[in-house]
Amino acid sequence: MQLGELTTPCLLLDRAKLERNLSRMRARLKRLGVTPRPHLKTAKCVEVARLALDGDATGITVSTLGEVQYFFAHGIADIVYAVGIAPGKLDGAAALIRRGAKLTLILDSAVAAQAVAERGAGLGVKFPVLIEIDSDGARAGIAPDASALLDIGKLLNDSDGAELRGVLTHAGASYHCKGIAAIRAMAEQERRCAVNAAKALRAAGLPAPVVSVGSTPTMTFAEHLDGVTEARPGVYMFHDLVMAGLGVCEIDDIALSVLTSVIGHHARTGQLIVDAGWMALSRDQGTSEQSVNQGYGLVCDLNGRPLGDLIVRATNQEHGLIGRRDGQPLHVGRYPVGTRLRILPIHACATAAAHAAYEVIEEGEVNARWSRCNGW
Amino acid sequence: MQLGELTTPCLLLDRAKLERNLSRMRARLKRLGVTPRPHLKTAKCVEVARLALDGDATGITVSTLGEVQYFFAHGIADIVYAVGIAPGKLDGAAALIRRGAKLTLILDSAVAAQAVAERGAGLGVKFPVLIEIDSDGARAGIAPDASALLDIGKLLNDSDGAELRGVLTHAGASYHCKGIAAIRAMAEQERRCAVNAAKALRAAGLPAPVVSVGSTPTMTFAEHLDGVTEARPGVYMFHDLVMAGLGVCEIDDIALSVLTSVIGHHARTGQLIVDAGWMALSRDQGTSEQSVNQGYGLVCDLNGRPLGDLIVRATNQEHGLIGRRDGQPLHVGRYPVGTRLRILPIHACATAAAHAAYEVIEEGEVNARWSRCNGW
Repeated sequence: MQLGELTTPCLLLDRAKLERNLSRMRARLKRLGVTPRPHLKTAKCVEVARLALDGDATGITVSTLGEVQYFFAHGIADIVYAVGIAPGKLDGAAALIRRGAKLTLILDSAVAAQAVAERGAGLGVKFPVLIEIDSDGARAGIAPDASALLDIGKLLNDSDGAELRGVLTHAGASYHCKGIAAIRAMAEQERRCAVNAAKALRAAGLPAPVVSVGSTPTMTFAEHLDGVTEARPGVYMFHDLVMAGLGVCEIDDIALSVLTSVIGHHARTGQLIVDAGWMALSRDQGTSEQSVNQGYGLVCDLNGRPLGDLIVRATNQEHGLIGRRDGQPLHVGRYPVGTRLRILPIHACATAAAHAAYEVIEEGEVNARWSRCNGW
Repeated sequence: MQLGELTTPCLLLDRAKLERNLSRMRARLKRLGVTPRPHLKTAKCVEVARLALDGDATGITVSTLGEVQYFFAHGIADIVYAVGIAPGKLDGAAALIRRGAKLTLILDSAVAAQAVAERGAGLGVKFPVLIEIDSDGARAGIAPDASALLDIGKLLNDSDGAELRGVLTHAGASYHCKGIAAIRAMAEQERRCAVNAAKALRAAGLPAPVVSVGSTPTMTFAEHLDGVTEARPGVYMFHDLVMAGLGVCEIDDIALSVLTSVIGHHARTGQLIVDAGWMALSRDQGTSEQSVNQGYGLVCDLNGRPLGDLIVRATNQEHGLIGRRDGQPLHVGRYPVGTRLRILPIHACATAAAHAAYEVIEEGEVNARWSRCNGW
């Protein structure tokens, strides 16, 4: 099928770029000596997962129990659910483990550890657990030197309902670093926090075979990962304009785009009106704090080549307004109603989430449609 | 089913508030003497559409051809697809018309009118068309006094492939008005532009039986709608914090909320970590330019009562950070891990779009699950 035959808006995935991104990260993690545990929260797609697992990796990371169910149903059993477990989800997690999923949970409090231990014991399931470590102050996790670390570790280790597997951290603050040196320093901070927490557990006689770190920026620039056992980057599969703005990828590495049609012209301001609004692109404006503001996305021709400095400047639900980054009017007559364009995503996770499936393109033709598992 | 049994995050719809919002708008449009043509782009749900159509209305408005297919399959045939038609969608639209849909298209250029006329003639279908009028300068449409209006009108009227039905406008700028007087003035501007365009068509001997206007703010405050035949508000069904900030509704009118669980505490800053991130809430920050910034949503207890000034201050994909609006630390111990909360949406259209279905609650119990038709 040709791109011209697709209904707009829809989500395109360039398979060659996807595979290039996957093999680069695979080679990089191999050099760093850690096992990849790719994060599927961006892709939410078993075909992408299988390509990402090609090589040494056998396990994945996910962000919802819905993803666990989906990937397990498609034959991928070794899964870390990398969002702090809510007690109300333990019965669902136990059901998956009973059916054969090698599902690992994470938590960062004694209250959650107690809930896991008790519910596991009550259900006759031993929940594998990683303790979440805070390596950047941004979100969840406990400090690597907190006394709570050992309390939680002992609580889990002494329980019939849990199995302490080690530690996990995510330096999400790397998304806001200015420059590669800052990302590299963040990678070392992420590594050090996780390794120190694992050492503290081991020094107290507790097991910590798993030391899990990862974000796409830190895994791209880390100098070494001594003491780490696995890495969980995710957005590297597709990349996006936030990653390009950070210096983590080139614009040409971005594998995802939204196909759209020109539906009108805003003559007074010299802008195009297209049928991709925030519903198809997401409301994410993650480059607005970077040095180049890409608005709601960078505009390309049908072959995926950027059209100078054309960006999506504004969005409504099903309308996008495309204009020059500097606000000067476009010669709109060059893009008549019906013209098809492609928009590179600001944030691949958010843009992909707006769609039920990927139209997979190779050498300019659509040759597959891969579904996503949205929802919880 | 009790709220405590639902998996979090999920989308709750309070049926009593929905019905109250529907009956208020129905009464208001009756007083204004116009036929309601409720916009289903927010709800995307046939059960909601049926409640909204209770009374005089028989037709709806939608924002995608996917919605047309869905609502037509569920027995609602009279539909305005209120986004400028892309030529690539005409075959799909024709197929629906042949199957019995009373589908009306909109457009705002001679190029689009030519495409519709030719494709209609080629397919043996007479596409009903409204010409889109720009009443606020914000997005699509042509000026009500533009010479192009008559050119397009004649082109459509002279064609075997199209039937000119009149004009349509949407004063989306009403979402950014400061104060009720400004919304009222915008309502009059919206009305006047549409009515004047219809008069210009009629003066040229062209038909314009339909004069369609509408946004929730303008329909809430319009003083009169003389000359208008139908109104297309949408978000009034659920309302949201943007509407409350505009003075269009009260907080207590908001029928939609996201149920979430506390999964941890950010002790240093005195914030709660919950399992509703931007994936469940959307990235919309539409109140950030209003006088009260509600962040990513206003936090309520399980009964839907706001907890003082607690808002979602930050979001990651599956994490929300809840804190006080003034940034002062919360006493997080009052909300232990596992506590369930409800979050009122900033923008109902965007938050609802993140979910596959509504959990419908009446008197605190879940008694139905209504699906949505996301996608295109």
